[in-house]
Amino acid sequence: MKKKFDVLPEIAKLGHVALVSNDLEKSLWFFEEVVGLEKTTEVDGVHYLRAWGDFEHHTLSIKAGPEPSVDHIAWKAKRPEDVNNFAILLRDAGVDVTEVVAGTETGQGDAIRFQLPSGHHFEIYYQMEKPKVTDPKLKSVLKNQPYKAWRKGISPRRFDHVNIATNAQASDIVDFLAENLGFKIREYIKAPDDQVVAAWMSVTALVHDIAVMSNPVFDTSHELHHISYWSDNAQDILRAADILRENGVHFVGPGKHGISQAMYVYATDPGSGVRLELFSNSYLILDPDWEPVEWSLEEMEIGFTYWGEQAAAGEDANTTINAGSPIEQAIK
Amino acid sequence: MKKKFDVLPEIAKLGHVALVSNDLEKSLWFFEEVVGLEKTTEVDGVHYLRAWGDFEHHTLSIKAGPEPSVDHIAWKAKRPEDVNNFAILLRDAGVDVTEVVAGTETGQGDAIRFQLPSGHHFEIYYQMEKPKVTDPKLKSVLKNQPYKAWRKGISPRRFDHVNIATNAQASDIVDFLAENLGFKIREYIKAPDDQVVAAWMSVTALVHDIAVMSNPVFDTSHELHHISYWSDNAQDILRAADILRENGVHFVGPGKHGISQAMYVYATDPGSGVRLELFSNSYLILDPDWEPVEWSLEEMEIGFTYWGEQAAAGEDANTTINAGSPIEQAIK
Amino acid sequence: MKKKFDVLPEIAKLGHVALVSNDLEKSLWFFEEVVGLEKTTEVDGVHYLRAWGDFEHHTLSIKAGPEPSVDHIAWKAKRPEDVNNFAILLRDAGVDVTEVVAGTETGQGDAIRFQLPSGHHFEIYYQMEKPKVTDPKLKSVLKNQPYKAWRKGISPRRFDHVNIATNAQASDIVDFLAENLGFKIREYIKAPDDQVVAAWMSVTALVHDIAVMSNPVFDTSHELHHISYWSDNAQDILRAADILRENGVHFVGPGKHGISQAMYVYATDPGSGVRLELFSNSYLILDPDWEPVEWSLEEMEIGFTYWGEQAAAGEDANTTINAGSPIEQAIK
Amino acid sequence: MKKKFDVLPEIAKLGHVALVSNDLEKSLWFFEEVVGLEKTTEVDGVHYLRAWGDFEHHTLSIKAGPEPSVDHIAWKAKRPEDVNNFAILLRDAGVDVTEVVAGTETGQGDAIRFQLPSGHHFEIYYQMEKPKVTDPKLKSVLKNQPYKAWRKGISPRRFDHVNIATNAQASDIVDFLAENLGFKIREYIKAPDDQVVAAWMSVTALVHDIAVMSNPVFDTSHELHHISYWSDNAQDILRAADILRENGVHFVGPGKHGISQAMYVYATDPGSGVRLELFSNSYLILDPDWEPVEWSLEEMEIGFTYWGEQAAAGEDANTTINAGSPIEQAIK
Repeated sequence: MKKKFDVLPEIAKLGHVALVSNDLEKSLWFFEEVVGLEKTTEVDGVHYLRAWGDFEHHTLSIKAGPEPSVDHIAWKAKRPEDVNNFAILLRDAGVDVTEVVAGTETGQGDAIRFQLPSGHHFEIYYQMEKPKVTDPKLKSVLKNQPYKAWRKGISPRRFDHVNIATNAQASDIVDFLAENLGFKIREYIKAPDDQVVAAWMSVTALVHDIAVMSNPVFDTSHELHHISYWSDNAQDILRAADILRENGVHFVGPGKHGISQAMYVYATDPGSGVRLELFSNSYLILDPDWEPVEWSLEEMEIGFTYWGEQAAAGEDANTTINAGSPIEQAIK
Repeated sequence: MKKKFDVLPEIAKLGHVALVSNDLEKSLWFFEEVVGLEKTTEVDGVHYLRAWGDFEHHTLSIKAGPEPSVDHIAWKAKRPEDVNNFAILLRDAGVDVTEVVAGTETGQGDAIRFQLPSGHHFEIYYQMEKPKVTDPKLKSVLKNQPYKAWRKGISPRRFDHVNIATNAQASDIVDFLAENLGFKIREYIKAPDDQVVAAWMSVTALVHDIAVMSNPVFDTSHELHHISYWSDNAQDILRAADILRENGVHFVGPGKHGISQAMYVYATDPGSGVRLELFSNSYLILDPDWEPVEWSLEEMEIGFTYWGEQAAAGEDANTTINAGSPIEQAIK
Repeated sequence: MKKKFDVLPEIAKLGHVALVSNDLEKSLWFFEEVVGLEKTTEVDGVHYLRAWGDFEHHTLSIKAGPEPSVDHIAWKAKRPEDVNNFAILLRDAGVDVTEVVAGTETGQGDAIRFQLPSGHHFEIYYQMEKPKVTDPKLKSVLKNQPYKAWRKGISPRRFDHVNIATNAQASDIVDFLAENLGFKIREYIKAPDDQVVAAWMSVTALVHDIAVMSNPVFDTSHELHHISYWSDNAQDILRAADILRENGVHFVGPGKHGISQAMYVYATDPGSGVRLELFSNSYLILDPDWEPVEWSLEEMEIGFTYWGEQAAAGEDANTTINAGSPIEQAIK
Repeated sequence: MKKKFDVLPEIAKLGHVALVSNDLEKSLWFFEEVVGLEKTTEVDGVHYLRAWGDFEHHTLSIKAGPEPSVDHIAWKAKRPEDVNNFAILLRDAGVDVTEVVAGTETGQGDAIRFQLPSGHHFEIYYQMEKPKVTDPKLKSVLKNQPYKAWRKGISPRRFDHVNIATNAQASDIVDFLAENLGFKIREYIKAPDDQVVAAWMSVTALVHDIAVMSNPVFDTSHELHHISYWSDNAQDILRAADILRENGVHFVGPGKHGISQAMYVYATDPGSGVRLELFSNSYLILDPDWEPVEWSLEEMEIGFTYWGEQAAAGEDANTTINAGSPIEQAIK
């Protein structure tokens, strides 16, 4: 199969997440006023948002729908031809691939969509507008920064990662991500039966562009645990906590993870119920010979939470949202 | 030339800098007690140091010598075979390449050394020990972190980048780095005569693994402007300033660069005169279609210094140290 | 003289500063949008502002006028009867005292006004409204905090101190503040001729509620050097620098003073030219037996600026504004 | 009674706490190496410690004993004669007062000791040495700061407050503190039966120099809930959490209180079991007409913990230490 390409197609980075909210107004208030994302544009009821340091057209889109869900999680390919090459590669692997023509999603070129074995919906694109901000009230004075920082709300710098959940085997997802999309395992949790129950994976220098967690408490095989935006400083996370509390938004934290070494607060969008991680610090993996860090469940007292407030037991099960469609492979 | 390889050799990341100090004791006091680097080992008068979050054997080595200088700047290749492939590629490009057998530098496998057209000495290696810390007083309780943080001094997390200087054309270096070593220009300054006078280049997601600055005030074509260690938070840089002032170490800053968007303090090693940048924040470039950001000299008021204290005019010229040998190509 | 009172009248704290701006619109943009002060009310063209953590009706008032100036600097007395007792005490000391009836200044009870020997205008009041914020969008969820923090701009917590300047003897002012108003010297600078050329004085635990600086470069004997608002964290001052730069507001810093040990940025109101210090950290003096800390001019390299950017020489002279009327005593 | 004095004696500030540890070595490791307090001196087995910004001889003393306990909590009087005047005032109020001659406690002048109705042991002194640090490795370059900051461990700036607990009525303590020692209530919790169950009280601008909490779960009427040292920045508390975790010290937090608006981490001295609060931010009360802020138990969700991790229910009961002797008045 691999001989079809001179160079295997590659994922460059996480692009965006497309959310459906059952209370659009509240979700927009949360993401625009409390979190402080900027609106690039609104087209046909889809609101395209990004953080002040996001270069591409959008890193989050939100539209109204009867049930909160994730329409898709989008990844930017490394080269223009990689979009089509991923279609070939995935179809060869027996995956059903849909083509999404340029402009279907505002700002975006030709793309493909498909489901993981778990039923999570993924999109791969290459071409995406990088709109220049022109309004001097919004535009940064720096040429390397789209918007002014600190205009409103929490004001994180950029989109960081997604965390998906499943009530099936994590390895169904982890293996798919590794074999077909080139994600490398950076850290993972192994259960006593040698099953990988959680994995932090990336194609970039980040510890994770995506994390995968399995637990029978989750409703389906294709849940979204959280999406995450990144801030420059740990203290920005403390300021985020102040802002969330004053705005009556439910959150857990602050705390610091052992795995990933990141400061966090987990806030819940009062519109859609989506969990948003405000995130800072962490570390970079620049070594090509990185050995994945293995953790046991016994080590999770420090692995999940180095210190700080963590979610109450069972809360995870109630606060994920559906991130895909039930498909045959998902429930084995 | 390129057809010799299935895959072109690639640089994965900056590895280490090998310093020569004319006052070793003072340099060790500075780097170990004030900056707070950890000593992996000392062998034959070479002191191998790293930050608490550096995984490889060393990111800085220091030995005594009559004149302060940089022995070499070392880069880790992406694959084992890349070391040899770089040797082939560089020799084809007319570069004189020396082989350095495993163990010459403690912890390091086979490597090569060569000079840039400017005379700067580079090394490329792949294999490097990643020593586990075993002393419970030093070892972090986290499996993904070598040493405890905050043991002493400033305590930065990891080695970040080097900045080299030349009194010749910057393009001599920039072109070499781009064509032979695969560095991409992320931001650069263009003079009115269309010459690139400074460039920030990387092979990683960092805005720069290496920066190149040209100015006739520099003594030679092969100077080191500074090396840099990274801290997690802007406030760590303020704490660094307190520590430097209390220890009587000369420094400039704190400030924030426009280019790279990074918080900084520049401290001078009282032993060798080497300038060390304590560095935080900045941004990541994950986009494969990044367009280098061009700055003019007129924009440097905000480009060099977004805010804060900057070096007095002319200080740069006096505070670089020699980072190579005079070679024919360097002086045109 | 002192026998007139069972208990000598006392100053409890700095209350507010009343500014006159020659560009009111710009000053309001600066103080409300960039600095982020809240407007309690506007009455007869006087805009009454306070920070989110200020309990009293206003800590800054601004009105339009042909020339930027300070109408008065107001101090809250410790007891209701102290306002009148200060009138008696000051008149006994030969000071001309004017009574200001309740309501002249919105929210304020009966007060007195008078000039220092330098010509600076002071006010003493006791009664001041402490308006409860009722709008749930503005009101903090905490019962001990008037407004939500972080609503807009820099968002400092509270008014902190004033710094006044004179081209006459500092001791004219310092002695008056000590003898008549009970201010204690906390730190001071002594010139080689034994003159006190600057003093940091307080009636509270702050290192200074007021500082006094003398220098022949100042235009008159009654200048305002700066007013200052306090933020909780050093990093808030870095965030302030970002916001100021993005809004095109001139500022100096960040830096850290040796005297007072405080982080600072000095911003200039583009409307009035008033200098505003954004201020954090510093220390408290709780000891009743505090010995004033004496500094010599030679020690000012570390005394004025422990580290960071400081104002260019001579800048002080150009950026103070008039804080009083020329009076006979002022020019000796 | 009050006519005996021209001026009533007054407390100026909290001075120190004298601890007894049943594992002195571990307590010294905790307070000196982990917390990073400096040792002024050791005399006759009593270790006198202070933070780098504490001006007086000691703010904590520790000696060995069979049971962990608080020997006394010491307060500095405002004037030399206040020590004796407090003795007169307290004896008139029926309190048994013991005189402690100068030198009994190293560095301290004549003092008095007595018990609260609850059995807590208090000391009042005025004269205390303020030793100058002379070792250039320890001494700050600033004239207003005793030691260099950041030498080791958490490195808080200064002693801040004590929190005492009782299984009897809080009002027994609160009324005594208000009537005899001049403490003002700044914030308090009122139970449905109108009982004050907790109060934050001060003689300084701090929200509390002392807090009092009553709960039947406490063992006796005279417990110490915690002592507290203050750091300049919220991020210093996060750094403290890192250091505590790496050193295996049990702690709760970080979090932010609603009452007092302070960032905290509560660490437990592994030697004595004393709970130490690392503390930052909070607010100052400079208004002489401050109205105590009343909270109900229903408001405690936000009052105790604005956000962050709080102690598990019941933990309080197990982690206080004895701070006095059983006395008749204490158990009613």
